[in-house]
Amino acid sequence: MKYWCEYAWLGGASVARSVELEVVDGRFVSLRTDVASESSGSTVLPGVTLPGLANAHSHAFHRALRGRARGDTFWDWRDGMYALAERLDPDSYGTLATAVFGEMALAGITAVGEFHYLHHGPRGVPYDDPNEMTRAVAVAATTAGIRLTVLDTCYLAGGIGEPLSPVQQRFSDGTAEGWVERVDLIASSPSVKLGAAVHSVRAVDPDSIATVAKWADHQIAPLHAHVSEQPAENAACIDRYGKTPTEVLGQAGALSERFTAVHATHLSERDIELLGGAAATLCMCPTTERDLADGVGEAHRLVTAGAKLSLGSDSHAVIDLFEEARAVELDERLVTGTRGGHSAEALMNAATSGGQRALGWHEAGRIAVGQLADFVTVGLDSVRLAGSTQDSLLSSIVMSASAADVRTVVVGGDLIVDAGAHKSLDVERELAMSIAAVWD
Amino acid sequence: MKYWCEYAWLGGASVARSVELEVVDGRFVSLRTDVASESSGSTVLPGVTLPGLANAHSHAFHRALRGRARGDTFWDWRDGMYALAERLDPDSYGTLATAVFGEMALAGITAVGEFHYLHHGPRGVPYDDPNEMTRAVAVAATTAGIRLTVLDTCYLAGGIGEPLSPVQQRFSDGTAEGWVERVDLIASSPSVKLGAAVHSVRAVDPDSIATVAKWADHQIAPLHAHVSEQPAENAACIDRYGKTPTEVLGQAGALSERFTAVHATHLSERDIELLGGAAATLCMCPTTERDLADGVGEAHRLVTAGAKLSLGSDSHAVIDLFEEARAVELDERLVTGTRGGHSAEALMNAATSGGQRALGWHEAGRIAVGQLADFVTVGLDSVRLAGSTQDSLLSSIVMSASAADVRTVVVGGDLIVDAGAHKSLDVERELAMSIAAVWD
Repeated sequence: MKYWCEYAWLGGASVARSVELEVVDGRFVSLRTDVASESSGSTVLPGVTLPGLANAHSHAFHRALRGRARGDTFWDWRDGMYALAERLDPDSYGTLATAVFGEMALAGITAVGEFHYLHHGPRGVPYDDPNEMTRAVAVAATTAGIRLTVLDTCYLAGGIGEPLSPVQQRFSDGTAEGWVERVDLIASSPSVKLGAAVHSVRAVDPDSIATVAKWADHQIAPLHAHVSEQPAENAACIDRYGKTPTEVLGQAGALSERFTAVHATHLSERDIELLGGAAATLCMCPTTERDLADGVGEAHRLVTAGAKLSLGSDSHAVIDLFEEARAVELDERLVTGTRGGHSAEALMNAATSGGQRALGWHEAGRIAVGQLADFVTVGLDSVRLAGSTQDSLLSSIVMSASAADVRTVVVGGDLIVDAGAHKSLDVERELAMSIAAVWD
Repeated sequence: MKYWCEYAWLGGASVARSVELEVVDGRFVSLRTDVASESSGSTVLPGVTLPGLANAHSHAFHRALRGRARGDTFWDWRDGMYALAERLDPDSYGTLATAVFGEMALAGITAVGEFHYLHHGPRGVPYDDPNEMTRAVAVAATTAGIRLTVLDTCYLAGGIGEPLSPVQQRFSDGTAEGWVERVDLIASSPSVKLGAAVHSVRAVDPDSIATVAKWADHQIAPLHAHVSEQPAENAACIDRYGKTPTEVLGQAGALSERFTAVHATHLSERDIELLGGAAATLCMCPTTERDLADGVGEAHRLVTAGAKLSLGSDSHAVIDLFEEARAVELDERLVTGTRGGHSAEALMNAATSGGQRALGWHEAGRIAVGQLADFVTVGLDSVRLAGSTQDSLLSSIVMSASAADVRTVVVGGDLIVDAGAHKSLDVERELAMSIAAVWD
């Protein structure tokens, strides 16, 4: 299968013109630039073709809160989110996740990391298959046509030294060993990878973090954790352990280049050194961090210290990785008074290869021979991008494009989105029906 | 002409269902809710119908900088913007402004305040008609089908006590009296109003501010000014006058309920009291304030003190008043750590009646009998808004809608945008051609 791209981003600070891509067995096998006209039979992709976008941090079910999220603080908001979590079962969760992953596909997202902690039935009673919820999420991603990394989440306590609330019992495997026992039953596939997550230092004690980290080391799997999203988490952690959350994670052996710190909003100097020194990934979720009044993390300093950058739409107040990408830079400008900490190239890397790497998809995220043929074409036929030139296109897309500008999405050579519409799902209808169902 | 709206926002915290609007001679003459089915011949508007949006602060020509804006600071950015300003003449300015106002129409903007300071030819030589540039802007708005308030801007100095640079000479009428003499020649029309602007305390001395303010009082016209966008402006002002910019404006007689402070990012306690006490309008331009690393203004405190809120897309890095509206709230969350300072209702008021009021269109901005029939319908057939209910729709639109969701725009009873497309302009093409022309 051959594609002729009006423009394609092959890395670097600008886009290439007239690029011919050849895909065989789901991978790029050749790539030529400045191909004056398309060869017969090649699919023409007008606009700018990018590597598939990676959404490195998702809680799919939070999408049902869009427009309904109340509460003056993060903690109040969490109560509303828990009320939603209590309503879900494998059927309703699977239907909702299918629709949400469909919305992601329409936004050009070809791989998602689902930070998945809603494991068990009411009052924590396991389903007959203890991974029934995980399976529902995996089927959802497959149905929507995108790759999935299940970041299967260990969640054991309601706070440092605090018991689980009734809804939190659904998240818990009792012990880290119980978590290992369950996740060892999960099978992966060519489009579904398994990774680990520690919910946070609030929900997992240091010994249990070490158990999860050891499992991830053994499996050479990604390991993610929410880190220092709110000042109250830092205060409780320092109070109990005399260490910051990052220090606790470091001492438990969690920090490595396979580790992703989600949010990392309120860090100490030492935290920045630790995460940078480990070449860990930072997952910024700016539209959620805005929504939840978290604050602005120091992404520029973390990257300078050696950390890699990735992006997540997290609570899905918005599902638009262009919006997340520019928000990393724009929100830092608001608090530093300086422009340009993150280049358009760096932000596009975060949205593509940075996120794919964080999810363990090392063979995706670049348009290059041998890589998985996951790619996305952004149309230039909108008022948002009108007036761009070859030199300014990358910057225009990062700063001004919308998920609504995504025209074509291909995952492993398969066409998932064509002319801005999902090939197999009526996503708007699925969203409306599945969200109505959980609130009815 | 009758319209049947699936939902319409008639003010308040939620939307009404099944609303029939009747328009005669460009105004609403009747309004009925819960009209079960449309009467024969009425136009059906699926989605949510809102009052026309008002863009209270625009520099149309900045649109040509989208994706091309460089510089580490506001001041470096300004150099690039001046380089653009130098290239413009009435023809190229008019063509570009037509396209930009067309982009605004597509985003549901039915009235724009053009903060217009590029008055004269190279080296400040007036055109044969000294208001030729203003006329080009007025023709542009009329061609695009939207209402315009020309905020004709007085600009006399390159900084406090500093001479004009060559490009700034194009902005200047020499004296405030020269400004009055020129603007008194400008005719208004049913769709074009005339207002005044003081560029800033950097560019206009206190005596000249008083002259402009007096003109605006006499004309009962809106008066706008850039206020405290950057800390350096405050420092220079206090250094020279021993007063903040707001205090200087207050002493010159500029503050009233017809005054709009644009940005007002870095205010003192006393400034907040002055603006609130005058019931002045605050015009927040959050996507520009992010882009230019201005900081986060204290909109919530200003509103609490008595100021009204309006919105502007300013430099047009983005033209999307829904994005501006939510950013007021979301950016404040980032710096305060608290959610919900501005309700969805308050933010929608800012995007509609607040902005219309700031531009002197007191008969627009509400769907009510007697008001101008300026209205906008947002489609619910996108993934962004799927899953909303009548109760959550207003919040969903403010927090999640995109300008791309605007389907229908009516100004004074005339259909300007239908099915998401401009009725008389190929806006994408006009943008591409006019922007290419200014950079060629």
